[in-house]
Amino acid sequence: MFFQFIDILGTIAFAISGALIAMKKQMDLFGVLIIAFVTAAGGGTLRDVMIGVEPVSWMRNMTFVYIVIGSATFAVIFRKQISYLLKSLFLFDTIGIALYTVVGIETGLVAGLHPVVCIAMGTMTACFGGVLRDILCNEIPVVFRKEIYATACILGGFTYFILLHFFSDKNILFIIAGLVVIVVRLVAVIFKISLPSIYNKEELQEDSEE
Amino acid sequence: MFFQFIDILGTIAFAISGALIAMKKQMDLFGVLIIAFVTAAGGGTLRDVMIGVEPVSWMRNMTFVYIVIGSATFAVIFRKQISYLLKSLFLFDTIGIALYTVVGIETGLVAGLHPVVCIAMGTMTACFGGVLRDILCNEIPVVFRKEIYATACILGGFTYFILLHFFSDKNILFIIAGLVVIVVRLVAVIFKISLPSIYNKEELQEDSEE
Amino acid sequence: MFFQFIDILGTIAFAISGALIAMKKQMDLFGVLIIAFVTAAGGGTLRDVMIGVEPVSWMRNMTFVYIVIGSATFAVIFRKQISYLLKSLFLFDTIGIALYTVVGIETGLVAGLHPVVCIAMGTMTACFGGVLRDILCNEIPVVFRKEIYATACILGGFTYFILLHFFSDKNILFIIAGLVVIVVRLVAVIFKISLPSIYNKEELQEDSEE
Repeated sequence: MFFQFIDILGTIAFAISGALIAMKKQMDLFGVLIIAFVTAAGGGTLRDVMIGVEPVSWMRNMTFVYIVIGSATFAVIFRKQISYLLKSLFLFDTIGIALYTVVGIETGLVAGLHPVVCIAMGTMTACFGGVLRDILCNEIPVVFRKEIYATACILGGFTYFILLHFFSDKNILFIIAGLVVIVVRLVAVIFKISLPSIYNKEELQEDSEE
Repeated sequence: MFFQFIDILGTIAFAISGALIAMKKQMDLFGVLIIAFVTAAGGGTLRDVMIGVEPVSWMRNMTFVYIVIGSATFAVIFRKQISYLLKSLFLFDTIGIALYTVVGIETGLVAGLHPVVCIAMGTMTACFGGVLRDILCNEIPVVFRKEIYATACILGGFTYFILLHFFSDKNILFIIAGLVVIVVRLVAVIFKISLPSIYNKEELQEDSEE
Repeated sequence: MFFQFIDILGTIAFAISGALIAMKKQMDLFGVLIIAFVTAAGGGTLRDVMIGVEPVSWMRNMTFVYIVIGSATFAVIFRKQISYLLKSLFLFDTIGIALYTVVGIETGLVAGLHPVVCIAMGTMTACFGGVLRDILCNEIPVVFRKEIYATACILGGFTYFILLHFFSDKNILFIIAGLVVIVVRLVAVIFKISLPSIYNKEELQEDSEE
């Protein structure tokens, strides 16, 4: 019940964020719906297809399908008012990422994959919906440029596999890993922390002059 | 026999339209061939991969492969003359979309998926070849911006599942659903109907000023 | 042993080339790592997913995963010095393409696919990592514009299936096919040969004036 509630919050946040970006690109109703769907389902779909879980998960989950359609419609109708919701959306989104990471890790574990690959699957589940959204909108994926996002997922995944040596209750492990994702992301956003840049000033200038 | 004939017409139309767009982008022979192939096979490939029909359908259908290669070659050689064919191409394309929609729905039904997901699979089969083509050509997919296209597929799909309560002969249902797709698209194009815009004038101006 | 050594060289070359392009686009550490990975694993992943080999090959091959992570890290640290290595990289890359082509053909054969589809799978394995890399970097894939690359793979594939009528030792066939890929590409680059353009001068001017 509790997990399902969180799952729905996360899906809503992903779908609305996708719809908002699609509307910025002046897409029509169909485009907005597809981008909302891809943002919410894209990461998990890629993961399922690569692992071989088919039909992919959302095809058997009508609740998910209806929530995405509902969220996209909501975003279209209330797009002027939604700016008041951005903070709640950010919070839902962060919770969604944490949950998606954990779900991705779990799917990898069930398929018997190596911990490093499981962490990759968790990160992919959480981040690649946004990557596909950005590609469909003809942008370089934002997560490849400013990525507190992905790092949080990776750290959450590492936490899970390190604690696995000390705890055996999976549910507790998943909750702790999810909390790590949430805390890392919130701290990074609040204190404006990003990965140390790998470019020095000259390189950055060169490119902006190009 | 009749269906196969329609299938071939649709494939030719998709492949040629892909080749023409690739040539506009100054791609070389290899690029033109790949874009033609992706336009014709992309939607069905995505559908098969997500549902778990593997190897994907076209890999077992050499007729399809040769028709695409032939159509792309034809488009390269006669690209100057092809403008005289554009009206026939549009008609073939519309017939192709109708058939692809029906094939997609059928594939979903065989996999035991929910009607809403089947309609999504039909629309994906018909429209996502074009989406992948546009991504490979570095454009925002045209179907997300002006989409009489996708709406026609969705309406055809709904028609199928509504009539399913009254008829039992699948072949008749498929033909009716296909005709709905064709009629909706032709009417929309002839009378220049598009979805009601979700943006008001101010929003459109704002963005064009950006 | 020998094949494994070649495989590792190819993977390193693909991963480093991906990382270099990601750094040109000012991506952060996570972006560089993902682009390196997609460049090295993308073609094979697409092939596996379309044929139905799941979980996809690299998920069971931790050596591959660690080599990509190591190569990307190396490229980030020594990006200033790497220009001295470009020639060796080009050589490794060419060897990598040859090997990937052969691996792709072999995977198609095991799945019982038609020779033409096997050649397509070989070419996809060798070239579509680069295609996905370019899409993620928001560029029109370079292989669709100047493609000595793909033609070499296709010719290597044809050689394989033609010689199949005369030889029965698969290992020898694979080595010959791989050598054809390498020689075609080297000759094309050294003598600056490209496919005959399908556009005449006027068409090229028109477009550059646009």
